[in-house]
Amino acid sequence: MFDPDGGDGGADRLVLGIDPGVSRCGYGVVRRDGSRFRAVAYGVIRTPPSEELPNRLATLLHELDVLIGEYGPFALAVERVLFQVNTRTAMSVGQASGLALALAGRAGIPVVHYSPNEVKLAVAGDGGAGKFEVQQMVMRLLELPELPEPPDAADALALALCHWWRAPLVAVGAVSTAGPKRSSRLDAAIAAALAKDAATPKGVR
Amino acid sequence: MFDPDGGDGGADRLVLGIDPGVSRCGYGVVRRDGSRFRAVAYGVIRTPPSEELPNRLATLLHELDVLIGEYGPFALAVERVLFQVNTRTAMSVGQASGLALALAGRAGIPVVHYSPNEVKLAVAGDGGAGKFEVQQMVMRLLELPELPEPPDAADALALALCHWWRAPLVAVGAVSTAGPKRSSRLDAAIAAALAKDAATPKGVR
Repeated sequence: MFDPDGGDGGADRLVLGIDPGVSRCGYGVVRRDGSRFRAVAYGVIRTPPSEELPNRLATLLHELDVLIGEYGPFALAVERVLFQVNTRTAMSVGQASGLALALAGRAGIPVVHYSPNEVKLAVAGDGGAGKFEVQQMVMRLLELPELPEPPDAADALALALCHWWRAPLVAVGAVSTAGPKRSSRLDAAIAAALAKDAATPKGVR
Repeated sequence: MFDPDGGDGGADRLVLGIDPGVSRCGYGVVRRDGSRFRAVAYGVIRTPPSEELPNRLATLLHELDVLIGEYGPFALAVERVLFQVNTRTAMSVGQASGLALALAGRAGIPVVHYSPNEVKLAVAGDGGAGKFEVQQMVMRLLELPELPEPPDAADALALALCHWWRAPLVAVGAVSTAGPKRSSRLDAAIAAALAKDAATPKGVR
């Protein structure tokens, strides 16, 4: 699925990152350009709290369907919900992520989950990085002309980036996405090295 | 929307009850036949735990869509998730219920939630009734030739019945479906009376 040899492999292949939520669902589409990564699209699907929940979820279902249809990603990177959150939050995130997962399943697109800490570690080299730090790193890594706003959109781009970096590691068995991270030190070192490498401006190609 | 005058109003109108879950999602379609109620269809949508979650949710999305399309209910009665359950359960139920809600929203069908206690109270006259008791009462109330199996299907039928009884009360402001029940005694009395009335065999009509 992932072509670790680089070259033009992946140049026109897209990863869709999703930061699921009913009020605000962040999305970010990232392609690989050699050893660099580019944002193809990003933003937030908003549904007004004044509307009935079924209507809001119908809007979200439609918008996510349009996104998947328009970009045809080869993978979805979806934020893993931590089980420390309260039940109400879990329900709401479950409703939003359920729609994304069902649409991915219907389109035959594999879904990979990453925890917020994994994502922050991958893009900022620090699992405890703040929202602004993530926005700054995403701007730098994707060479965006401005800070990606709102933070939900930046998080979604970070999820997509995280998948681009981690997918080859998963493929060779260096890391696992099946559950909570085990070898955090090794992961941290690899992710930081990859992030640094990707962030370093390249010369003539 | 609801015709409290009875007559033939509602004879061909259906309520779809949904007991949401990813592994087993119960459904029950109930129509009113004068002062009686009939089960039009009931069952359980199952998705195998051995499959990937996105595929399972895609199956559920498709099956629920088929159900709504086939029966064209005028209302969905969906089990309200209690916030006492753990986060993992809430996520899973959120994913399943989110699909049902999104499809209802897309089809313009109103959704009403009832808590397990409200449903048990309505069909069995006891908010603490067991699964078997609910199955037995549903069988009796809908004059089914056999016990509705599995319990998830019986719960979904009970949800639909609960909505048929409570919808007119909601319409006249006697009860609220907006949140946790307030006047449980009044509700219990009304629900028990209605259940008893509906369960009593009628003479010449």
